[in-house]
Amino acid sequence: MEKTPITVAYGDGIGPEIMQATLDILQAGGAQLDIETIEIGEKVYLSGNSAGIAPEAWESLRRTKVFLKAPITTPQGGGFKSLNVTTRKVLGLFANVRPCVAYSPFVSTKHPAMDVVIVRENEEDLYAGIEHQQTQEVVQCLKLISRPGTEKIIRYAFEYARAYGRKKVTCFSKDNIMKQTDGLFHKVFDEVAAEYPELENEHWIVDIGAAKLADTPEVFDVIVMPNLYGDILSDVAAQIAGSVGLAGSANIGQEVAMFEAIHGSAPRRAGQNLANPSGLLLGSIMMLVHIGQNEAAERVHNAWLKTLEDGIHTYDIFDASVSTEKVGTREFAQAVIARLGQKPQQLTPVSYAQAKNVSFNVTPKPQAPVAIETVGVDIFLRHTDRDPNKLGQALKTHKAGAMSLSMITNRGVKVWPDGFAETFCTDHWRCRFKSEALDPSSYQDILALQQSITEAGFEIIKTENLCTFDGQPVFSAGQGA
Amino acid sequence: MEKTPITVAYGDGIGPEIMQATLDILQAGGAQLDIETIEIGEKVYLSGNSAGIAPEAWESLRRTKVFLKAPITTPQGGGFKSLNVTTRKVLGLFANVRPCVAYSPFVSTKHPAMDVVIVRENEEDLYAGIEHQQTQEVVQCLKLISRPGTEKIIRYAFEYARAYGRKKVTCFSKDNIMKQTDGLFHKVFDEVAAEYPELENEHWIVDIGAAKLADTPEVFDVIVMPNLYGDILSDVAAQIAGSVGLAGSANIGQEVAMFEAIHGSAPRRAGQNLANPSGLLLGSIMMLVHIGQNEAAERVHNAWLKTLEDGIHTYDIFDASVSTEKVGTREFAQAVIARLGQKPQQLTPVSYAQAKNVSFNVTPKPQAPVAIETVGVDIFLRHTDRDPNKLGQALKTHKAGAMSLSMITNRGVKVWPDGFAETFCTDHWRCRFKSEALDPSSYQDILALQQSITEAGFEIIKTENLCTFDGQPVFSAGQGA
Ligand SMILES: NC(=O)c1ccc[n+]([C@@H]2O[C@H](COP(=O)([O-])OP(=O)(O)OC[C@H]3O[C@@H](n4cnc5c(N)ncnc54)[C@H](OP(=O)(O)O)[C@@H]3O)[C@@H](O)[C@H]2O)c1
Ligand SMILES: NC(=O)c1ccc[n+]([C@@H]2O[C@H](COP(=O)([O-])OP(=O)(O)OC[C@H]3O[C@@H](n4cnc5c(N)ncnc54)[C@H](OP(=O)(O)O)[C@@H]3O)[C@@H](O)[C@H]2O)c1
Repeated sequence: MEKTPITVAYGDGIGPEIMQATLDILQAGGAQLDIETIEIGEKVYLSGNSAGIAPEAWESLRRTKVFLKAPITTPQGGGFKSLNVTTRKVLGLFANVRPCVAYSPFVSTKHPAMDVVIVRENEEDLYAGIEHQQTQEVVQCLKLISRPGTEKIIRYAFEYARAYGRKKVTCFSKDNIMKQTDGLFHKVFDEVAAEYPELENEHWIVDIGAAKLADTPEVFDVIVMPNLYGDILSDVAAQIAGSVGLAGSANIGQEVAMFEAIHGSAPRRAGQNLANPSGLLLGSIMMLVHIGQNEAAERVHNAWLKTLEDGIHTYDIFDASVSTEKVGTREFAQAVIARLGQKPQQLTPVSYAQAKNVSFNVTPKPQAPVAIETVGVDIFLRHTDRDPNKLGQALKTHKAGAMSLSMITNRGVKVWPDGFAETFCTDHWRCRFKSEALDPSSYQDILALQQSITEAGFEIIKTENLCTFDGQPVFSAGQGA
Repeated sequence: MEKTPITVAYGDGIGPEIMQATLDILQAGGAQLDIETIEIGEKVYLSGNSAGIAPEAWESLRRTKVFLKAPITTPQGGGFKSLNVTTRKVLGLFANVRPCVAYSPFVSTKHPAMDVVIVRENEEDLYAGIEHQQTQEVVQCLKLISRPGTEKIIRYAFEYARAYGRKKVTCFSKDNIMKQTDGLFHKVFDEVAAEYPELENEHWIVDIGAAKLADTPEVFDVIVMPNLYGDILSDVAAQIAGSVGLAGSANIGQEVAMFEAIHGSAPRRAGQNLANPSGLLLGSIMMLVHIGQNEAAERVHNAWLKTLEDGIHTYDIFDASVSTEKVGTREFAQAVIARLGQKPQQLTPVSYAQAKNVSFNVTPKPQAPVAIETVGVDIFLRHTDRDPNKLGQALKTHKAGAMSLSMITNRGVKVWPDGFAETFCTDHWRCRFKSEALDPSSYQDILALQQSITEAGFEIIKTENLCTFDGQPVFSAGQGA
């Protein structure tokens, strides 16, 4: 078997110890790896590199396309960029994959049957980080959901489920409220699900789904979610499995993938041969399957499970009622190596046989172009007088192209025409201009409207075009009344 | 004692039975209520009123300002507006309050010590419902957080904690990512917390906080959150307390407040004297404290707890190992009435003595006006060529006032200048125009820029002004690089 080149970073704190233990186990387990080592983390930050990673390290990552990363320490104080955020953005790591498994009774948990994989979109949603404040009272953050971004993460979830022998993919979204953004996520989920008839699929509204996940996680298998829900609920899932210290995760890009433990560098445990290498080891097992070394992955994973159930435990999970021996990092690795070829008796053994020769094709399907027409504009004003009727009267006289004032909302609630006296109004007003029949307008019309409103003394703070796609409006109506 | 006028709706399905049981208990418990009855729900919808509530009902609500509402049935099929959403918007019910309490061992739960109140902002955040699609690939939803809206909900949480003898108020937000929107929420929390030195306060990043809540809810007391997090996590909290069928909730406005059970009208249990009235009863107890009838509230609540621990249970929570008698709705109400004046022995009795004469003042503090300058504009383009450098070259020549092109991002990631080849680009580009030194520009400059970009053949889809407040930029930088 040819060796697969990978890039390894030993990191900070307990990083070097758990990385050494992990690599020792992988090698004894038959993994064929050609290792390039790079320097990241504290030393690099403190040498004056604000990203914590040297330029030549990127070349290694671009060459091997596989990154096994130990935790690092980000120095205290400002000016240091998060290495994880940088890596994710630069390498386009669109999928965050986190298996959350209970190992009861060997690790205590309220949910002994739990075995859930959270697949979290990693690039868009509110995490695009686009925020503006334009009035004294109101701050805005853009939530962006793209069709190709959504399709990639959902395809990834189904490919993953197929490769890892999973039975069901669940989607969480809030499309009863966010009908267009989360609606797109749900719609793409349904489309892609139809291409995987052998896998069960289902959708839950995220609030009820989250309640179910927290209460009876054993009913879920693979769950795919937009970025924010995935951020919150992958932490919930890892925590209630009882195994935050035992969890690994993968960050997958179309070219490059990164594998790690979910915990940090635990500096106060560094250099004492104490740390549990299991989180990083489980991350490295995901890496082995990713690069097609399924047999080694299976051998190592089962030996690790056997070690756990034999009660050979590092300090962090040692519990006199189930543990037989308290060991250090190195001894734990030796115990796993001694069990290579064995399978657990009580815990469920893993099998990666099915995952052979699976290519994770996540390429979005080309979409037929739609006919886009601009039919109006939402003009947002900064305006401190709180009377919507006065504002409506004043704006009614402004027209351009087919457009005239059709409504005013404040925080989304319609306040003109026919608002309610009780509606609380801020200094942030959305004024919608369009024709009743959705006649097209040009951008010159939109400019003329802005010009005339500005000349009348109003302060425009932002605009949003109103469009139709193939004749259908693709903007939300106002709420209330 | 003078009677307090309240408005009551008997609702649909099990509504009339549980309302009758609730009102019988309240009256026997000494509540002084002057009841106006209104018609809402199925009958009203089917009579052709798409809101499910008659116009004269609003008059009653505006008069009494207190609404005790039984669940209703929303007819199947389109065109019917959610009565809860309408009521919330029309009456400005900004706070959703949901106590989540475990009643172990009488109601089974994995979290027997849980006693958490979720206070959820109810009007803004992503739920303002402002969505636009302007390119084929990208859909947008606006997240709006306002200072007065935030201040109202946070003041409410602290006032509630004080009135109900709670010890700690926790805030959840994601301000490490959404530094301006969630940052505002966190900042206002810290400001308001300082006015309540007798109450402990703390802030958690919502992902870690949610994990903690799902795993060890007993460490929390009152938790205040923006709308979306509150929606998800109030469902999680109610579910893991084990008492979805026993939970009540309040929707509080500055004028009017509405009290209800969190469950629905359970039509298949209607008319059979089976339903558990506890959720609505707990809602009505919140109402009694709200209108200052604390003694009656305490008497009724303790009698209800005593009934529960005496094992007098309706079918839904009947469990032979802890229940002594299976009863119907009416008999359950009689059992509570028979225990008025008694206190529970095993469950913790409630006391509302402290809540006397508390006025819930949530009025936002006036803010000193800031000096707002417009210093640039983000112009968003629909553009299907994927080469950021070509786009950058073309836009570099467009200038107005002090503004010229400073960067281009795609889904928030900087792609010009000095982008990375791996960054995945959609058809949605944000082009930032400003001066290095943040020199002010007029809206005429912004119009001139839009004009020149439009004339060059680019399709503008939206704009966002860039502002400084008292000289400080209040817009986020681009990510990456
Ligand atoms: N991906 C990453 O590189 C990453 C992720 C998170 C944090 N960090 C960084 O790590 C540094 C420390 O963060 P932190 O202390 O908050 O979190 P942490 O490193 O995860 O450690 C917190 C505690 O968890 C326990 N723990 C974590 N990993 C363990 C292991 N493998 N074996 C045994 N016990 C383990 C230890 O508890 P006891 O000491 O109580 O035994 C440790 O003190 C910071 O600089 C942070 O920025 C890096
Ligand atoms: N605030 C509201 O007005 C509100 C809220 C939610 C839903 N709804 C409406 O209610 C209707 C029915 O919704 P749904 O069936 O999904 O939910 P649901 O009414 O909450 O009832 C679901 C099931 O929960 C149990 N249940 C709920 N309340 C109970 C009580 N007080 N005592 C005993 N068991 C109770 C029953 O289970 P078993 O039958 O298995 O015993 C019932 O069939 C729909 O029209 C919905 O729109 C109204």
